[in-house]
Amino acid sequence: MVEHTSVDLPDVSALTIGILGGTGDQGKGLARRFSLAGHTVLIGSRSAERAQEAAREIGVRGAANAEVAAEADVVIVAVPWEGHKALLESLREPLAGKIVVDCVNPLGFDKQGAYALPVEEGSAAQQAAAVLTGSRVVAAFHHVSAVLLLDPSVEEIDLDVLVLGDDREATDVVRALAGRIPGARGVYAGRLRSAHQVEAFTANLISINRRYKAHAGIRVTDV
Amino acid sequence: MVEHTSVDLPDVSALTIGILGGTGDQGKGLARRFSLAGHTVLIGSRSAERAQEAAREIGVRGAANAEVAAEADVVIVAVPWEGHKALLESLREPLAGKIVVDCVNPLGFDKQGAYALPVEEGSAAQQAAAVLTGSRVVAAFHHVSAVLLLDPSVEEIDLDVLVLGDDREATDVVRALAGRIPGARGVYAGRLRSAHQVEAFTANLISINRRYKAHAGIRVTDV
Repeated sequence: MVEHTSVDLPDVSALTIGILGGTGDQGKGLARRFSLAGHTVLIGSRSAERAQEAAREIGVRGAANAEVAAEADVVIVAVPWEGHKALLESLREPLAGKIVVDCVNPLGFDKQGAYALPVEEGSAAQQAAAVLTGSRVVAAFHHVSAVLLLDPSVEEIDLDVLVLGDDREATDVVRALAGRIPGARGVYAGRLRSAHQVEAFTANLISINRRYKAHAGIRVTDV
Repeated sequence: MVEHTSVDLPDVSALTIGILGGTGDQGKGLARRFSLAGHTVLIGSRSAERAQEAAREIGVRGAANAEVAAEADVVIVAVPWEGHKALLESLREPLAGKIVVDCVNPLGFDKQGAYALPVEEGSAAQQAAAVLTGSRVVAAFHHVSAVLLLDPSVEEIDLDVLVLGDDREATDVVRALAGRIPGARGVYAGRLRSAHQVEAFTANLISINRRYKAHAGIRVTDV
């Protein structure tokens, strides 16, 4: 077992984190935890007003997505799958050169629960990489429960954040960011071409949650 | 949290377990662990001689796949993906009415490691269900490390076995079987339509193993 401790990871404590689609529960939950960890956090939305409203709830700053994309050091994409591609196409320039963390799960829902949607590019993360050719796209934070992130009584989250990407330095930054959430750990889990199954696995976690009345996550053993 | 203990699961200790493709490392490893747990285990192969040879190594019985399919109560499919469909087509009759556990991972390999192969039916397990219309197909045991299963110095395996299927009674039997491996636990993880990402996730585990020099598995938290 090697390099599994945060000792090997870069110091990310000074990074400003922007969250596109930060008015949704997952984005807001991540914003809250990163803010608690001492980061400057910017919540983005199509409407600056709605972003500011959501940001006020958790004590951070809100702005229009384009402004957040331009200002933040690392940008997390937490928008609904439906608007994913169009939003990223509109933000190619401000996101150029930056680490962009895609946590979007392309899922459909029916009577039997959640199921994975097919994605032309293979996965949401690969779609992001195809659109944002000038950015350093990483996939992570798919499985974290918005309920737990937002719950003030939850101090630690029992979760390994699977981090995928083709840029070693960028995945190390995101692994370190995952470790800023108390209880969580960032684990490298493959290249971007293996992101689909990690996104799709969120459907399984939803099935598990339903069956076991849980907020399930996963831990990787032996690392 | 409900029904996560083995108390709720059926007693499977008397079941005879057949393993198709039991001469490969994963099949042989599962055979070894189920035999140690007290089950009668039959190892199958296209060649009865090769099955008997592999079976001798671990002290169980070997036979041709068709004989194993006919005799066993529960049949685990551990063949290479290439021969998966043809083998199952040839065993439709002996497998009718039985619980068939598919643990096949359709993967390709290149310089960058393992990657998920597309499967016309969605997943190996769904292909099995499409072929074996008279059987009760369950997907499980995808992530268990053959190395750990076969290692006599490994007493417990730190792993949740994800069990997927559309037949509640059958998934409960397989969850109980997973629990017969010391350290392991069977966790229901969705319907068969969500099997693809569980099979494909084996590619991620291979990436994790390479990066961390580990035999990684996963645990589901909060259940």
